[in-house]
Amino acid sequence: MDAAAKSGLPFDDIRNLVRQMPGPDAAARAAALERQGQLTKPPGSLGTLEEVAVWLAGWQGEAVPAISRPLCAVFAANHGVVAQGISAFPAEVTAQMVANFSAGGAAVNQLCNAFEVGLKVFELALEMPTEDITKGAALSEAECAATMAYGMEAIAGGCDLLCIGEMGIGNTTIAAAIAYGLYGGMAEDWVGPGTGLDAAGVKHKAEVIEAAVALNEGQLGDPLEVLRRLGGREIAAMAGAILAARMSRIPVLIDGFVATSAAAVLHAMDESALDHCWAAHKSAEPAHVHMLEKIGKAPLLDLGMRLGEGSGAALAVAVIKGALATHSGMATFAEAGVSDKD
Amino acid sequence: MDAAAKSGLPFDDIRNLVRQMPGPDAAARAAALERQGQLTKPPGSLGTLEEVAVWLAGWQGEAVPAISRPLCAVFAANHGVVAQGISAFPAEVTAQMVANFSAGGAAVNQLCNAFEVGLKVFELALEMPTEDITKGAALSEAECAATMAYGMEAIAGGCDLLCIGEMGIGNTTIAAAIAYGLYGGMAEDWVGPGTGLDAAGVKHKAEVIEAAVALNEGQLGDPLEVLRRLGGREIAAMAGAILAARMSRIPVLIDGFVATSAAAVLHAMDESALDHCWAAHKSAEPAHVHMLEKIGKAPLLDLGMRLGEGSGAALAVAVIKGALATHSGMATFAEAGVSDKD
Repeated sequence: MDAAAKSGLPFDDIRNLVRQMPGPDAAARAAALERQGQLTKPPGSLGTLEEVAVWLAGWQGEAVPAISRPLCAVFAANHGVVAQGISAFPAEVTAQMVANFSAGGAAVNQLCNAFEVGLKVFELALEMPTEDITKGAALSEAECAATMAYGMEAIAGGCDLLCIGEMGIGNTTIAAAIAYGLYGGMAEDWVGPGTGLDAAGVKHKAEVIEAAVALNEGQLGDPLEVLRRLGGREIAAMAGAILAARMSRIPVLIDGFVATSAAAVLHAMDESALDHCWAAHKSAEPAHVHMLEKIGKAPLLDLGMRLGEGSGAALAVAVIKGALATHSGMATFAEAGVSDKD
Repeated sequence: MDAAAKSGLPFDDIRNLVRQMPGPDAAARAAALERQGQLTKPPGSLGTLEEVAVWLAGWQGEAVPAISRPLCAVFAANHGVVAQGISAFPAEVTAQMVANFSAGGAAVNQLCNAFEVGLKVFELALEMPTEDITKGAALSEAECAATMAYGMEAIAGGCDLLCIGEMGIGNTTIAAAIAYGLYGGMAEDWVGPGTGLDAAGVKHKAEVIEAAVALNEGQLGDPLEVLRRLGGREIAAMAGAILAARMSRIPVLIDGFVATSAAAVLHAMDESALDHCWAAHKSAEPAHVHMLEKIGKAPLLDLGMRLGEGSGAALAVAVIKGALATHSGMATFAEAGVSDKD
């Protein structure tokens, strides 16, 4: 660890929060599980919907949980590594897409409208890309910690389910670098086409993350160092938002490949740090499935999506709503006068 | 084929409809595909949502399709084969669950409410179970054709998306028998726990469908004969409903294992018969995935559900709504002033 990390002040608050993370309410979970066994269906026949209902019960501390204020928080940032030619789209698209979010024209706007999810976009100094990770640390410790703290504001206005999404040209390279930095293996295992690279572009992307990790050799033992050295502002902010949600026991839907890389940093700090999270979907970005395995999450949806923006998470709110509707609204065997299993 | 089938009159109307099935509107499909390429996202990045939008465009004949009257049609019936002890629940549960549907207490009620899907339950002579398929044909040709015609009434009140579901104690045995009759292989490949059989129960179920198929040896070359000999009223009605939807170019979501067996009969008559259908989900009933492979359908959802009732199809309406919301509501690159791919 370098001197900045050793002095430790900016990251200490984060470490303290991670040490103080609350767990789910065991009694509410148990009550929800018991209720599931009484509803008019064969035991277990609603599959993941049942698990989701019980999970929400635990985090909400209610045997019959309800979601009335779901929020999708989308964090946007730019990345110096775009100079290495690792994206199919130019960096200016980040700001253009933020404008598109404001105007209501993006995919995530439509999905939030369709499933009555609030949408907040957090613009993170788009005019100030992070350092090119092949040349130096993306962020200083102070910047990284401050950005995590800013991300914690996502829940400040109140919400009872948080969808985590992002926009940032170049950030599948950043996410791949984080995964490679956290988990090792081969650089090739963590890269993919992102917004549309060809095979040569993907190979180049692997070389770029290889170079970035090599530059930080011996400095990546601490997940927060991986985050600041190989990450980006939206990644740090998402990690902060996921952690803040945990402190308030707000359940979280993690979107795709890039959002998962932010979650992975917290998971590497503490294996239980994502117990309040569900993976919204399995991205078409090929390394996402490996990252989900590393954090021990099964995705709710598998629809070949790879857009980011929180689009997969906003769509997965529908599954949450289905789970809650059945859990809260179904009659029990006794109420309906239905004969139980022989 | 036996004498009744050779005389052919009751099934002739069905065969005539299959011969006259309309296809999708190629121009609308092409226009929808073109629109998808202009929306503010990397090409293909909404995955299956894009495919769903284009599919709906074709069947609705509109470049920008919309769904305003989705309907879930649930067909309920009883089965003589229950006498063979192939279900974990008693036969009386079919009628009790129909009452539960009417009272609004079942899973499908909650899911239809959550996603604004109309619900109609079709009760098919519950007091008159079909013949035990180990002892004789489930239905006469006349009964089977009349039940298919009754199923066609599902769309009579008007709808623009049809979810197909069922309720019938014993009907995973019926569905397994149909699959075994249509596709052969080993009886064991097509059976599973249904509402909750143990391993011995599943083995017995395999013996039961083995006996039923053996009883009809040499009589199962015609898919409609498979339907009437090994099927049930709800299966025949679902086949009729799917076919009626096709004649009116109404897209269909097929629910789970049992609903798929009805679809499989039509597919065996004509490989294109299910072009207007999407498999809503992959059931936890283990043979469902094999049946989906046989009919060439990839499921929208995979949530370990195995309840029937149209519950998976009603939930999958959310995916359809997400697909339509993005297709119709997103800005194009030109409208949003976003730079396209390099």
